[in-house]
Amino acid sequence: MIIILKPNTNEMQINNLIEMLKTYGVTVASINGKHKNILGLVGDTSKIDIETVKAQTIVENIRRIQEPYKSSNRKFNPEDTIIDINGKTIGGNKLQIIAGPCSVESEEQIIETAIAIKEAGATMLRGGAFKPRTSPYAFQGLHADGIELLLKAKAVTGLPIVTEIMSIEHLDLFADVDIIQVGARNMQNFELLKALGHSDKPVLLKRGLANTLEELLMSAEYIMAGGNKNVILCERGIRTFETQTRNTLDISAVPLLKQLSHLPIIVDPSHATGLTSLVEPLSLASIVAGADALIIEVHNCPEKALSDGAQSLTPQQFSDVMAKIKPMAEYIGKEIS
Amino acid sequence: MIIILKPNTNEMQINNLIEMLKTYGVTVASINGKHKNILGLVGDTSKIDIETVKAQTIVENIRRIQEPYKSSNRKFNPEDTIIDINGKTIGGNKLQIIAGPCSVESEEQIIETAIAIKEAGATMLRGGAFKPRTSPYAFQGLHADGIELLLKAKAVTGLPIVTEIMSIEHLDLFADVDIIQVGARNMQNFELLKALGHSDKPVLLKRGLANTLEELLMSAEYIMAGGNKNVILCERGIRTFETQTRNTLDISAVPLLKQLSHLPIIVDPSHATGLTSLVEPLSLASIVAGADALIIEVHNCPEKALSDGAQSLTPQQFSDVMAKIKPMAEYIGKEIS
Amino acid sequence: MIIILKPNTNEMQINNLIEMLKTYGVTVASINGKHKNILGLVGDTSKIDIETVKAQTIVENIRRIQEPYKSSNRKFNPEDTIIDINGKTIGGNKLQIIAGPCSVESEEQIIETAIAIKEAGATMLRGGAFKPRTSPYAFQGLHADGIELLLKAKAVTGLPIVTEIMSIEHLDLFADVDIIQVGARNMQNFELLKALGHSDKPVLLKRGLANTLEELLMSAEYIMAGGNKNVILCERGIRTFETQTRNTLDISAVPLLKQLSHLPIIVDPSHATGLTSLVEPLSLASIVAGADALIIEVHNCPEKALSDGAQSLTPQQFSDVMAKIKPMAEYIGKEIS
Amino acid sequence: MIIILKPNTNEMQINNLIEMLKTYGVTVASINGKHKNILGLVGDTSKIDIETVKAQTIVENIRRIQEPYKSSNRKFNPEDTIIDINGKTIGGNKLQIIAGPCSVESEEQIIETAIAIKEAGATMLRGGAFKPRTSPYAFQGLHADGIELLLKAKAVTGLPIVTEIMSIEHLDLFADVDIIQVGARNMQNFELLKALGHSDKPVLLKRGLANTLEELLMSAEYIMAGGNKNVILCERGIRTFETQTRNTLDISAVPLLKQLSHLPIIVDPSHATGLTSLVEPLSLASIVAGADALIIEVHNCPEKALSDGAQSLTPQQFSDVMAKIKPMAEYIGKEIS
Repeated sequence: MIIILKPNTNEMQINNLIEMLKTYGVTVASINGKHKNILGLVGDTSKIDIETVKAQTIVENIRRIQEPYKSSNRKFNPEDTIIDINGKTIGGNKLQIIAGPCSVESEEQIIETAIAIKEAGATMLRGGAFKPRTSPYAFQGLHADGIELLLKAKAVTGLPIVTEIMSIEHLDLFADVDIIQVGARNMQNFELLKALGHSDKPVLLKRGLANTLEELLMSAEYIMAGGNKNVILCERGIRTFETQTRNTLDISAVPLLKQLSHLPIIVDPSHATGLTSLVEPLSLASIVAGADALIIEVHNCPEKALSDGAQSLTPQQFSDVMAKIKPMAEYIGKEIS
Repeated sequence: MIIILKPNTNEMQINNLIEMLKTYGVTVASINGKHKNILGLVGDTSKIDIETVKAQTIVENIRRIQEPYKSSNRKFNPEDTIIDINGKTIGGNKLQIIAGPCSVESEEQIIETAIAIKEAGATMLRGGAFKPRTSPYAFQGLHADGIELLLKAKAVTGLPIVTEIMSIEHLDLFADVDIIQVGARNMQNFELLKALGHSDKPVLLKRGLANTLEELLMSAEYIMAGGNKNVILCERGIRTFETQTRNTLDISAVPLLKQLSHLPIIVDPSHATGLTSLVEPLSLASIVAGADALIIEVHNCPEKALSDGAQSLTPQQFSDVMAKIKPMAEYIGKEIS
Repeated sequence: MIIILKPNTNEMQINNLIEMLKTYGVTVASINGKHKNILGLVGDTSKIDIETVKAQTIVENIRRIQEPYKSSNRKFNPEDTIIDINGKTIGGNKLQIIAGPCSVESEEQIIETAIAIKEAGATMLRGGAFKPRTSPYAFQGLHADGIELLLKAKAVTGLPIVTEIMSIEHLDLFADVDIIQVGARNMQNFELLKALGHSDKPVLLKRGLANTLEELLMSAEYIMAGGNKNVILCERGIRTFETQTRNTLDISAVPLLKQLSHLPIIVDPSHATGLTSLVEPLSLASIVAGADALIIEVHNCPEKALSDGAQSLTPQQFSDVMAKIKPMAEYIGKEIS
Repeated sequence: MIIILKPNTNEMQINNLIEMLKTYGVTVASINGKHKNILGLVGDTSKIDIETVKAQTIVENIRRIQEPYKSSNRKFNPEDTIIDINGKTIGGNKLQIIAGPCSVESEEQIIETAIAIKEAGATMLRGGAFKPRTSPYAFQGLHADGIELLLKAKAVTGLPIVTEIMSIEHLDLFADVDIIQVGARNMQNFELLKALGHSDKPVLLKRGLANTLEELLMSAEYIMAGGNKNVILCERGIRTFETQTRNTLDISAVPLLKQLSHLPIIVDPSHATGLTSLVEPLSLASIVAGADALIIEVHNCPEKALSDGAQSLTPQQFSDVMAKIKPMAEYIGKEIS
């Protein structure tokens, strides 16, 4: 940590600050220049309350050098985390293909879709029972009934299920869900993250619309700090000024998160742009960039979908995309299973 | 609503779509061009499920013309909403000045600060008991005790209190709070918004870091749809590429929200940039742009603040800012009381 | 300047780097920690080629502490720059109101508009002869004829004129122009900036759509490095994800640029949002935030404007806005003249 | 084109507007609703001056349906454009690998680098002679001498050369250059684009930092409108709030531009993030997403580079990346030659 002091700070003030900093057990070096005085801190600075230091009158600015995330930091955990999902694994040399509709709408819809995606090669089933919709007047999901239907689809196909949670109050309903998803809008719903930290369910944590990778890792940290190490990061597009796509897929997030963290990374090429025609190229790009899994929207009848129909693939389209994904996975040495 | 059809759509397909649309009770006009066919819908299109229409295979694109928000829309409610806060009002010709620390930290701190801000002219007290911090290792607030201390400060000074809620589970603790704040990170925590919709407490709804004004109004709509009409909108800076300020204050939001909606608008000049030196000019700018209230961070001793000390004014600095705010309010014909 | 070294760097490598850095005449302090080694540089680091240092294999990262701009930096030039424009001044306790059409279209149009804005209280005339249009098929301006017409309008009204340059080749045509404008799209057209640096004409430099304040100041630096100190900065809105306004006015830029630099600051409330209804509130906000001038689009007949008609005020609307601007300027102690 | 009229518009006003619109040779359909009146225009609306229409007092808003770009639009030119570069081709089933240093610095540097990249499999040489640097105090390039040195390197290796132009005045110096690059900061330097439109040199047009894909295509349109059809689009990262990478690579731009336009697309994975460790994954991702070429920074000695050393690969690193690129190109059926 580097502390830049204001000009015209006197020696006594500096010494007082140094003494205060030393109480945190760090080494402090003082560099005195004509215009600027700088303090360099070495050691474990993670215990230092950066807000308190920043608020000292003689402090002009602070530059952190160490990353603020620990449990999710690859420096402290060099080995890739591999998460077990009912016998399947996310991370390592596997590529999981999670597919399914935006919302669970009916028994027929979810089971038909589940069978179709399994046939095409998907390894897990997604579907929303609680839907975060911008408008209160839009379809909000089937709630408990939706989870019931997902479990039926799981019983029929054997596919593990992924579904989104929107409130701590509903946690009990997720007892048989295989992966609990935290949506982009809840990435910094810290109370929800804390509650999931006390669970042992794998959590698929989506990056917020305008959140940095460091903030994503800090949100992972909230879950991990509670004891739950089963966190899967998800890049799903960020908000930019571009208007042709719903969001902008930050493909660099995949290799960069792999460097910064040991956690597995998923890409959602459907929400990333909102355009079905881009699902195939973005899926392939994500795979070669290092993604551990893809999560793709597929609906047995997009024309009748109650949400996101326009960005959902039909089972046939999904099957066509899978025909490109499978050999690419094989080519780069990843197994879909 | 305008529906743009894909090229090479045949007449039968178009007629089927028109029939389907007419079931919503709207008038449909078809415009046929060489390259494009367009359907124009007039009437109450708010019941049309835009997602369903978008997912029809012959539909290329949809352009909405009517705003999707109703309860918060000035078109349907031309009169300014004026919200009663324990005898004081937000909206109309009043200017409320809400001040206080980022976090409630101790009885001494909150009461000292409350007395100081009241003396300087503030009309309400803010302070966080539940703190949404990016890092799980940072101070998270005093929770129930923090609310207790705020109520003590209210008892001492008579100032109504504003404090942030982070989870539905805590709602009971807010029974004596005057305004419940929903923070930027929870602007689209829809389950929380729905719960607040069933309360009758005034809700101060902060705009998310990367949310549009339409999305802010749709979140207001979530609260209002539940029956709670006491929503106060808050502009607190959006995230951009600029790095000198923590966020970028979107000053246009103030007059624009006044045009689009009848709800009162607050500006938070402290979070908007994170720089105390900008609080004064941004406060004055917000007032002349039409803000109904300001919410300013003040700490009795910023150097010892457990959060956001660097952007908190000292009581003396706040008093200096108030010395500029008061005559400006008077100049534009608003009363601080 | 702080240099963070990669882990596992050996002492010899560090010493070599320190020796290299000392050749720049700076003092280097080394701080050795368990995980990180840091070098702190004090002195005049402006001569250090940051790119070269960054590329050294043992360097992990560099944090600059001193601002890279000098001529425009208030630290080195504490006094406000006041620029003389044909007897009028920009900066200090004056408020200049620059008004006029987006494009010069005809003699009648520009002279009628010039007379009207002067009557309403404007102090300078703007009008585009060279128009940077997104589409090559849109009206591109009258070029040399446009400048001729502006000079006629100046002759009639006595108002100094401001007009945009798009290429060095046209510089001769600007001999009698009072202020040369560099548009947002050319803010980093460095060859153009260099050429203007060798002129002594006042330059109104608009901030680019997605440029930081530091980059704006670095572009000012390009002009000033050539000897031309007459630079006027202009905030005209930045690009964000918000879609209701054409751009987002960064109001904080005004007081912040005042702190960082001694150069005068103009705000363009017309381009900032593209909505005429926001010109008045944003003008008032800019004035109280410290702007030295406003530049407002006014057209004698917006319905017939060849560009930006929708964001142009009519003379009557401008006169109404001036009726609010004048007393506000007086209130804050600025003179419009 | 859809024109939304203001409420309370009377029939005469509407009829006047319709008559005016018909003079453009389009068909106008009027749709009358209770709250809104809409005009739908069909036919060739490209001649309609959208600004003029927008400025009519009875017009509330306009929604364009047709793309404003024509020459670059795939709809009107379904076949892929393939550009001949001295016998090599960009577009079609070829993958060109353009490599070289940010700046040309010396004969030894550019020739050594050129030989090294050719050996590793690059097919063209890049190098900057005119450098757009944020700071006027940074190295600005060798100018004419730099181009001389590039031509020497071309003579030695036979590699076609790509170098950036910053001002029309220098155009003569580019007579023997194979591809003229327009940098991101000049994407909307319309005078430069027009001048290049009158040349027949292939132009590599980089997307601006905060420009939309439509704006990129409109800038291509400026060049093509002058008669030069040899335009190559380049995605090089856009500016977002993410701070770990210099820019954010918009990978979706590749398949989307392929859909919208027939022009070839290049990706610059070096500038896109500024991190050498991401060049390999982003190169592979770009190839599978459909890029026709990559442009990669390589320096024979990055530690001594005068610009962008930190994002330049060494010849060895480039060779390692090529070892991944080559089989991937082969796998997807593209030939590097």
